[in-house]
Amino acid sequence: MTRSDELPLYPHRHLLGIRGLSPHDIEDLLDRADAAVAISRQAEKKSAILRGRTQINLFFEASTRTQSSFELAGKRLGADVMNMSVASSSVKKGETLIDTAMTLNAMRPDILIIRHQSAGAAALLAQKVGCSVVNAGDGAHEHPTQALLDALTIRRAKGHIGGLVVAICGDILHSRVARSNILLLNALGARVRVVAPSTLLPSGIADMSVEVCRTMQEGLKDADVVMMLRLQRERMTGSFVSSVREYFHYYGLDAAKLAHAKPDALVMHPGPMNRGVEIASEIADGPQSVIQEQVEMGVAVRMAVMQALMDPRRNTGAAQ
Amino acid sequence: MTRSDELPLYPHRHLLGIRGLSPHDIEDLLDRADAAVAISRQAEKKSAILRGRTQINLFFEASTRTQSSFELAGKRLGADVMNMSVASSSVKKGETLIDTAMTLNAMRPDILIIRHQSAGAAALLAQKVGCSVVNAGDGAHEHPTQALLDALTIRRAKGHIGGLVVAICGDILHSRVARSNILLLNALGARVRVVAPSTLLPSGIADMSVEVCRTMQEGLKDADVVMMLRLQRERMTGSFVSSVREYFHYYGLDAAKLAHAKPDALVMHPGPMNRGVEIASEIADGPQSVIQEQVEMGVAVRMAVMQALMDPRRNTGAAQ
Amino acid sequence: MTRSDELPLYPHRHLLGIRGLSPHDIEDLLDRADAAVAISRQAEKKSAILRGRTQINLFFEASTRTQSSFELAGKRLGADVMNMSVASSSVKKGETLIDTAMTLNAMRPDILIIRHQSAGAAALLAQKVGCSVVNAGDGAHEHPTQALLDALTIRRAKGHIGGLVVAICGDILHSRVARSNILLLNALGARVRVVAPSTLLPSGIADMSVEVCRTMQEGLKDADVVMMLRLQRERMTGSFVSSVREYFHYYGLDAAKLAHAKPDALVMHPGPMNRGVEIASEIADGPQSVIQEQVEMGVAVRMAVMQALMDPRRNTGAAQ
Repeated sequence: MTRSDELPLYPHRHLLGIRGLSPHDIEDLLDRADAAVAISRQAEKKSAILRGRTQINLFFEASTRTQSSFELAGKRLGADVMNMSVASSSVKKGETLIDTAMTLNAMRPDILIIRHQSAGAAALLAQKVGCSVVNAGDGAHEHPTQALLDALTIRRAKGHIGGLVVAICGDILHSRVARSNILLLNALGARVRVVAPSTLLPSGIADMSVEVCRTMQEGLKDADVVMMLRLQRERMTGSFVSSVREYFHYYGLDAAKLAHAKPDALVMHPGPMNRGVEIASEIADGPQSVIQEQVEMGVAVRMAVMQALMDPRRNTGAAQ
Repeated sequence: MTRSDELPLYPHRHLLGIRGLSPHDIEDLLDRADAAVAISRQAEKKSAILRGRTQINLFFEASTRTQSSFELAGKRLGADVMNMSVASSSVKKGETLIDTAMTLNAMRPDILIIRHQSAGAAALLAQKVGCSVVNAGDGAHEHPTQALLDALTIRRAKGHIGGLVVAICGDILHSRVARSNILLLNALGARVRVVAPSTLLPSGIADMSVEVCRTMQEGLKDADVVMMLRLQRERMTGSFVSSVREYFHYYGLDAAKLAHAKPDALVMHPGPMNRGVEIASEIADGPQSVIQEQVEMGVAVRMAVMQALMDPRRNTGAAQ
Repeated sequence: MTRSDELPLYPHRHLLGIRGLSPHDIEDLLDRADAAVAISRQAEKKSAILRGRTQINLFFEASTRTQSSFELAGKRLGADVMNMSVASSSVKKGETLIDTAMTLNAMRPDILIIRHQSAGAAALLAQKVGCSVVNAGDGAHEHPTQALLDALTIRRAKGHIGGLVVAICGDILHSRVARSNILLLNALGARVRVVAPSTLLPSGIADMSVEVCRTMQEGLKDADVVMMLRLQRERMTGSFVSSVREYFHYYGLDAAKLAHAKPDALVMHPGPMNRGVEIASEIADGPQSVIQEQVEMGVAVRMAVMQALMDPRRNTGAAQ
C-alpha cells in the first residue's frame, strides 16, 4: 500500500456519505483499496502507515462485521484502536451524543468511526470534533464504506462499473446501504434498478435516478449485479408483508428468479443474511455469490479510507 | 516524556489514593504529566516506555471516560492493554473479587487498574497481587487520578495551586472525586470550600480541613476555581432534594451564581455532566469552562502515573 | 521461545481436541510451553513470533480466564488480537454460527479461537474456514488447552506424568475439562480415577479407561494429583444432589479428604471456584494448591499452541 503522501492529497477530511464525493474521489478510494487488499493477504499483514495514530470506534448500534472490519483495518495499518460500544458508554448515565463525542475528542484521537441510529449523527459530530469522522452507518441515511466495498467488489469482478445494470432488491425504505449504493452507482454511471413492494420504498425514490420495478422478474432482467438487502424484520410491524414465507415467495432470491439476470450476474448481500427470507441458501453459497469477497473488500476499503483521511500533510500535529 | 529511570525513583509501588502521597510526590506526578501532554499532541502519539508491559483494566463499574483514558494512556506508552469489564467476567459465576484478581495476577500483568463499587477494594487487591495497582475509583472512597488531573488542569491555567480558593459544589457525600480533591488541594496549600445541602455532606466533613458553605453565593465568593460534581441521581432516593428543578435552583451552576466567583475563575466538572441539573449548558460550554481540558489532562496524568509506577529499577523481572 | 521454524513442523493445522494428538504431539506442545513461560516472566514480555498475524477470539460463552489467557498469549507473541463476544455479535440478529465464522474468515484472520455451547462447533468451523481453529471449549465435548495447561503444571511439579495417579472429582458429566484431561492423561500413561455420584457420570464412562470411584476416600487414596471440577450449578436441576451443603459433605475437597492422598499430592482446579461447594478455601489457598500456577501455565500453553499452528512453513501467504 502506497503511503498517502506519495499520492495527490485526498480533498476531504471526513467521510460522511457518498453524497459529496466526486466520481474522481470514489475512483481514488477504490484504487487505494485495491492496493490495500494485498496487505491482508500477506502472512505478516501489518503496515506502519498509521503507526501511533488513535482510532476510536464509537458504536451506538451493535455490528459484528462493520466494527470488526474497521478494527482490523486500523490494526493492520498500525493504529491504536479503541472500541466504545454503547453498552459500556456513559450514554446510559444520560450523557448526550455530543458530550460523549467531545469527551473522546479531548483524548486526541485522529479518527472517529461512528455508527448511530439517527440520520445525521456523523455530520453533527464532524462539526464539533477536531479529528476525522467516518460514518459507519447513521439511521436510514448513509453507510458509505459499504457502498465503496460493494463497488470495489463489482469493479474487481467486472473490470468497470459504468454501464452495468445493478438491481437492488428488498427493503429500500429502511436501508442506508441502498441509499449509499444508489448514490455511488449513479455517480460512476451504472444503471440502477430498485425492486421492492411499494410499502418498502421511500417516498422520495422518484428523485433518485433509479428505475423502480415491482417484480423481481422485471428488475433482474439482464442485470449484471443483483444486490439483495437484509430484511429489517424488527422494523416491519404492520407492513405489506404478511409473513416471511410470503416475502420470500415474491422478493427472495432463488434460482428461478436469478435466471432472469445475466448468466454471469454477481449476487451480493451486505450481511448478516436471513437465509430463506431474502435469499435462498443455495444462491448465497452458489457460484455467482461474491458475498464473502464483499467482506474481504470491506477491510481493504476501510484501510483505504483511513489512509486517505489521515494524510500527514493535512493532519499535522494533533488532530485538534 | 522522559524515561522514568532518568528521574529520581518514585517511592510508591501502587496508587491507591491521594492519602499517603506527600506534596513532593504529587508535584512529581504533575511534572511528569506535563511532559506527557506533548505525546498525545503529536501525530505519532506513541512512546516505547512501557513496551511489552501488560496493563489490565479491571472495571466492576462501567465508565466511558476513565477506562478509555487509561486504555489510551497505556497504548500510547506502548503497553499491551486488556480490558476486563464486569459484564464479561466470572463475577457473574460467583467468583469473588479476590479470586478474579488473583487469576489475572497469575497471568503476570505489570499493572492492574481497578474500579470497584466498594471502598477499599483497590487497597485489598494491592495486598494480594504481585503487580502495581492503580485505584480508578473505589466506592465513595478515592479516585486519585481524577484529583491529579484536576490539579494539573488548575496548575496549567493558574501557574500554581497553593493559595487558590477552590469551591467544590454538590453531592459531596457520595463523591470519591470530592474526597480525593480535598486531600490533594489541602496537601498543596489551596483553601477548599465545600458547598452542599447538609444531607449531601458526609458526617466526617468537619475533620477534613474544609470550609463548609450552605449557599452557592457564599461558597463561590471570590473563588478561583469552581468544581461542580455530578449529581448521582441513582443514589438519591429520599434525600433533601425533592426535584431536579429544585436542585438546579439552589445548587446548579448558572451565570448568576458564577458571577460571585472571580471573573477568571475556572469552571470544572469530572463528567459525565447532567446538563440543566448541576450545571447550565451555557456555563459548561462557556469561556471559563476547562471541562474538555480536564479530559485531555486525564490521559496525560494516567501516562505519568503508570510511567512512575513501572520504573524498571523497581520492577525487575516479572511483577510477581 | 524458539521460533517455530527452527523446530520440526508441528503436524496439525488446528487444535480441536486432545483426541487426535499423539503422545509425541502433546509432549512437543508441553516443551514449547515450557519455553514460553519465560517470556511472561520478563519485564518486557513481548516476542515478534506472530507479528502481523490476526487472531480472533470468537466467544459464544463468556469466560474471564480463557479469553483473557488467549488474548494475552496472542499479544505477547505480537499478534493483533480481536475479541468477538456473543453480546456484540450478529448472532442476536439471527445469523448462524457458520455465517458468523465465514464472515470473520473473509477478513483473513490467521487463527480463530472459538468457544461455543455446542459440542462439535470447533470441528465444524475447521471444515469451513481457511485459517487455523483452536477449540476453547465446545459444549461438554473438549477443552484441549485446559488439559494441556493442567499437564504442564503437573509435569513441572512432578517431573513427569506417566505412572502418576490422578483423581478427577466432581461433575464429570457436564465437564469438557474432565473429558480432555482423561484423554491426555491416558495418552501420557497416567492412571486416571474419576470420583462422582452416578448421576454426574456420563453413560459412556466405562469406555474411557478410567477407574470409577464412588467416594472421595476411595478415589483419593495415594493419589499424586487431585483435580477438582467446578460444580455447574446452573445445569443441575433435579439431580441427585439435594443441596450445596450435601454436595460439599460428600464430594467437596477438605483437609480430611485430602489426607487420603499422598502428602505431596497436587490440588488443582480449572476455575472459577465455588469456594465451600467443591473445594474448601483452606485447601484452595493451601500449600498443596497449584491453582494459581495453572493460570500462569494457561498463558504459556496458549502461546505454544498458537506458535505451533502458525508455523510459517505451513501458512505461507494469507490463511485462506
